[in-house]
Amino acid sequence: MDEHILPVELEKAYRLLNHGPTVLVSASHAGVDNVMAAAWSCALDFAPPKVTVVLDKTAATRALVEHSGYFVLQVPNMGQLELTHAVGSMSLAETPDKLKRCGVELFHVDGFNAPLVAGSSAWLLCEVIPEPRNQQHYDLFIGEVVAAYADSRVFHNGHWHFETADPRWRSLHYIAGGQFYAIGESAVIGVNDHGAA
Amino acid sequence: MDEHILPVELEKAYRLLNHGPTVLVSASHAGVDNVMAAAWSCALDFAPPKVTVVLDKTAATRALVEHSGYFVLQVPNMGQLELTHAVGSMSLAETPDKLKRCGVELFHVDGFNAPLVAGSSAWLLCEVIPEPRNQQHYDLFIGEVVAAYADSRVFHNGHWHFETADPRWRSLHYIAGGQFYAIGESAVIGVNDHGAA
Repeated sequence: MDEHILPVELEKAYRLLNHGPTVLVSASHAGVDNVMAAAWSCALDFAPPKVTVVLDKTAATRALVEHSGYFVLQVPNMGQLELTHAVGSMSLAETPDKLKRCGVELFHVDGFNAPLVAGSSAWLLCEVIPEPRNQQHYDLFIGEVVAAYADSRVFHNGHWHFETADPRWRSLHYIAGGQFYAIGESAVIGVNDHGAA
Repeated sequence: MDEHILPVELEKAYRLLNHGPTVLVSASHAGVDNVMAAAWSCALDFAPPKVTVVLDKTAATRALVEHSGYFVLQVPNMGQLELTHAVGSMSLAETPDKLKRCGVELFHVDGFNAPLVAGSSAWLLCEVIPEPRNQQHYDLFIGEVVAAYADSRVFHNGHWHFETADPRWRSLHYIAGGQFYAIGESAVIGVNDHGAA
């Protein structure tokens, strides 16, 4: 694993998704790897950390998630803008060499049965919590985060550092029609964070 | 309603949330109004548009949502930075005049039983789709969007215009500890958007 990639404490893993980035979803089953883009992914719980992601029934990646029970959510960055749009636009069913054509390089973490996309800013390694009604009726998958990593050049000490990192590390926030926004400037208020409402 | 606030076509309502902003959740029941902040909200479907939002069992707003069956997700902006943090930090149970103290001004849309927060960038008016297991086990609520509005100074013709609007309109993306990021610059790739994966 790249020397810049460091583990993220599980209790702080939600922070990797809290600002609502578009993610890359990767999975593998029976020797087939795939990666797709998903704007509809969200944190669901702090401890143990859980996430949601919407996987359409037409997505080849969904079948790999269902069969293997594992997936990775990665937070892509401006340096992966074209890759992110390409894996979200091209179908593995129609384009068997999709990953190669999209310039996706995969790597693995020992003992985890899903591939990670190199060059991303963060990775949440997830085990599916089976919820058949959500999956069938809403295309909604819930995962428990069993490990998390981030590139220390943009996330360290439990916080993103977009404002000081190279702009290529900014997260991507998809709208529609090929249009993304990069995350912008930091704004900090007080120190209270008990979250009551 | 303010002259700048225009309806958003339901089939494009998902775009109001697609970039993952922190939202304000408002609801009303038996004469009690409340507003809270939520970073864990996400689009779930295009047509009819659906959304998810995580509402902790300790949140006073959750009880109003459960009892009334309705809520509004609003997309707040940099001009509401302090308001957003305040409604996310202060509890109605402990502070009965919370909304006044947070500077929240509410308005209503005829025929809809939940209040809207003035000054926001967009509003998604939602009816709860009851899913008792999700609500009890994951604090996860699903809503169908029955109407949507946006301030035309930042969203019009089905698209956000953060890059040309006044910076005070930029959406907020919460991390933790009082730290938000504003949404940043636009990046556009090609015109293909069939979304296969």
